[in-house]
Amino acid sequence: MTRVAIIGAGPCGTAQLQAFASAEKKGAEIPDVACFEKQSDWGGLWNYTWRTGTDEYGERVHGSMYRYLWSNGPKECLEFADYTFEQHFGRPIPSYPPRAVLTDYIKGRVEASGARKFCKFLHSAHWVAYNESKDNFSVTMRDLSNASLVTEEFDYVVVATGHFSVPNVPHFDGFDTYNGRLLHAHDYRDAREFAGMDVLIIGTSYSAEDIASQCHKYGAKSLTISHRTAPTGFHWPESFEEVPLLTHVDRKQAYFKDGSSKNIDAIILCTGYLHHFPFMDEDLRLKTTNRMWTPDLYQGVIWQKNPKVMYLGMQDQYYTFNMFDVQAWYVRDVIMGRIQLPSYEEMQKDSQAWLDREATLENYEDEIWFQGDYVQTLLDQSDYPKFDVQGINNTFMEWEHHKHDDIMGYRNNGYRSLMTNTKQPVHHTVWLEALDDSMESYLGA
Amino acid sequence: MTRVAIIGAGPCGTAQLQAFASAEKKGAEIPDVACFEKQSDWGGLWNYTWRTGTDEYGERVHGSMYRYLWSNGPKECLEFADYTFEQHFGRPIPSYPPRAVLTDYIKGRVEASGARKFCKFLHSAHWVAYNESKDNFSVTMRDLSNASLVTEEFDYVVVATGHFSVPNVPHFDGFDTYNGRLLHAHDYRDAREFAGMDVLIIGTSYSAEDIASQCHKYGAKSLTISHRTAPTGFHWPESFEEVPLLTHVDRKQAYFKDGSSKNIDAIILCTGYLHHFPFMDEDLRLKTTNRMWTPDLYQGVIWQKNPKVMYLGMQDQYYTFNMFDVQAWYVRDVIMGRIQLPSYEEMQKDSQAWLDREATLENYEDEIWFQGDYVQTLLDQSDYPKFDVQGINNTFMEWEHHKHDDIMGYRNNGYRSLMTNTKQPVHHTVWLEALDDSMESYLGA
Repeated sequence: MTRVAIIGAGPCGTAQLQAFASAEKKGAEIPDVACFEKQSDWGGLWNYTWRTGTDEYGERVHGSMYRYLWSNGPKECLEFADYTFEQHFGRPIPSYPPRAVLTDYIKGRVEASGARKFCKFLHSAHWVAYNESKDNFSVTMRDLSNASLVTEEFDYVVVATGHFSVPNVPHFDGFDTYNGRLLHAHDYRDAREFAGMDVLIIGTSYSAEDIASQCHKYGAKSLTISHRTAPTGFHWPESFEEVPLLTHVDRKQAYFKDGSSKNIDAIILCTGYLHHFPFMDEDLRLKTTNRMWTPDLYQGVIWQKNPKVMYLGMQDQYYTFNMFDVQAWYVRDVIMGRIQLPSYEEMQKDSQAWLDREATLENYEDEIWFQGDYVQTLLDQSDYPKFDVQGINNTFMEWEHHKHDDIMGYRNNGYRSLMTNTKQPVHHTVWLEALDDSMESYLGA
Repeated sequence: MTRVAIIGAGPCGTAQLQAFASAEKKGAEIPDVACFEKQSDWGGLWNYTWRTGTDEYGERVHGSMYRYLWSNGPKECLEFADYTFEQHFGRPIPSYPPRAVLTDYIKGRVEASGARKFCKFLHSAHWVAYNESKDNFSVTMRDLSNASLVTEEFDYVVVATGHFSVPNVPHFDGFDTYNGRLLHAHDYRDAREFAGMDVLIIGTSYSAEDIASQCHKYGAKSLTISHRTAPTGFHWPESFEEVPLLTHVDRKQAYFKDGSSKNIDAIILCTGYLHHFPFMDEDLRLKTTNRMWTPDLYQGVIWQKNPKVMYLGMQDQYYTFNMFDVQAWYVRDVIMGRIQLPSYEEMQKDSQAWLDREATLENYEDEIWFQGDYVQTLLDQSDYPKFDVQGINNTFMEWEHHKHDDIMGYRNNGYRSLMTNTKQPVHHTVWLEALDDSMESYLGA
């Protein structure tokens, strides 16, 4: 029997489980699937942990999740087509849910599909190597419960370990002697720690936007956002300042490229993450930066040099959960022989066309349409329930406009579900005043 | 030619290098030695880094070193017998040097012996397995410079990766929702970050003592030290309080077993480290807590189940650098055939005798004499320069008394070198007022 190893049970890994569970439910004979997850439960990044650095087993802490996180995009853009928010919660709910609500939704789907039977928790990837003679893989996992290694052979390996887990941490002069709190976003946990502080954020991407906003919301005295190429351009509150790149720090004083300087209590490096797969043999290891099209992956998922290895969700992401779904359904169908892969040359040629188009993208709107087209391409090839990709693209456009109008207020909007066509309500409390991020509060009147 | 892999180039790994360099200098033909070090230079924990969590290569940060660290024991107790402080610095220097001075001393010795030629830096241990048929080891290292794996065969493997690197991090109720700064000592870097704060220290061992003292020195508002079994009993300053074990936290309030509670800005877990060797095949992997005698290690260093594997410095330590030396010299002589190992049964019997004595140890004085006897046992078996172990034991006793007399002032003492017999001077500034920990300041008048 064909054996499939899925590494990781976060949003991508559980999408893969859902894909197989769905085929099984429809009467297909599915392969023998084993999903290995380092944590003690599924959910990936969405499982909050107070731990940073290494966990109780000495393993790198996977989670970058922080408290009080609310979705930074409308849930209508990430909604599963096979399991809507309305189905899970019994009614329409507001568009920017806090972490607990999204976690409940993701887990609720796979719990309902009975996919837990495929999972081995507390199993951390140690090494994956291809066996030429057998045309299969030796997958070695560390069983954290007893610190032993287990090796099994598999015909396919689906890497679903994510790429927001191992921080990219640049050095700046003076960090060795900085006298304040210095951390990467990966280790950021509770905004209240920064109440009353002058906080410096390095970076301008999602982590920077969101952590800066959150620190402000929970009482930071000032936020200074330092950019390498361009300021975010958002209409920040009075206590915010955008400055060019940090040049160095001296004790607690931070200096910037324009010659300005400021006394800083805490520096948060929102400098992104590494695509890091130290457990994959070199021939199988994806090497890429965070970009709209990942080289070497046919259809964004198939490792061209050895198409029995798949990677899920490795793109720079506007689309998330439902993109992982169309990827997982596609991968499932390749594994189950429903989709035949073309030759290496044809795969390369196809990827090259995407890469060529990637090179023409000029702004976020271009990127959203690009990724929408990619999602549509995969959606057309499997039995994943069809959904209105163009509609989602348009919701993304609205979202971006709402953000640019009011970075502190964009979450006070509701959008129409593209899955159920129901307009979703606005939350009972404006985000800036909604300090309680519990599911009870969110779902309450 | 016999090939020896040393994993790690900190105090233990460099001691092993020094042992081989010494034999070579005396005209012996030494084996082919390769020392693999994850960092870009030798020195191990003594290399300060501002980084925490993972490093620029996505590897676990090894260092637990923090700024402003001064030796917490007299340098006369850790002095190398083959390279004295006076030899390195040209004159007697005070007894409790700051980090930079000790680092200079450790590195100075191996630099002088030309041992750098044995080292491969930026090589992280991935996997060590025994080859039954060849009676040797496949040692797989990750070359961090290009993220590739390299496997070589060796006849002996010396594990010198230390055991103060992977933190033991317990969970307490409420940590998930604590509103302050929460960290393990492993991630502690700069005391000035805690100025003005009410700091809670969990634990009573060296990290707890030293980090509490340092936070006080650099302006923390109050220190609360929470113990599991017994208070430290030191005469702490007014702003200190010793309390029983933490039961839970609620927002910023910490609650203790005696029913008391306190508002806490930062919690530092000084809860020790794991003996963590995930790169060693299970049959070769030392599993132990931090204790005076490590089971399964003959003479405290030889892996009894496969005596071609050695572990250095795995004991709970009073003795450090010169203990690592006598261990390394012993290991060298086993490898070079100068010392014949007895049968497995005899090794076990010998270890059992030490374990039996370990069980009788009642206090730190007993432990020091125990470890002194162990050091003497190894010292008697190699050509490491003889030194006065009993004299060092007595200096340890003096040190403990000085600490118990004045925990903030014990470093304002000088002791006699057991290697040169010279009384070492007292530092020009009392420790509590010596805010500058640079080598220049320390060696200045």
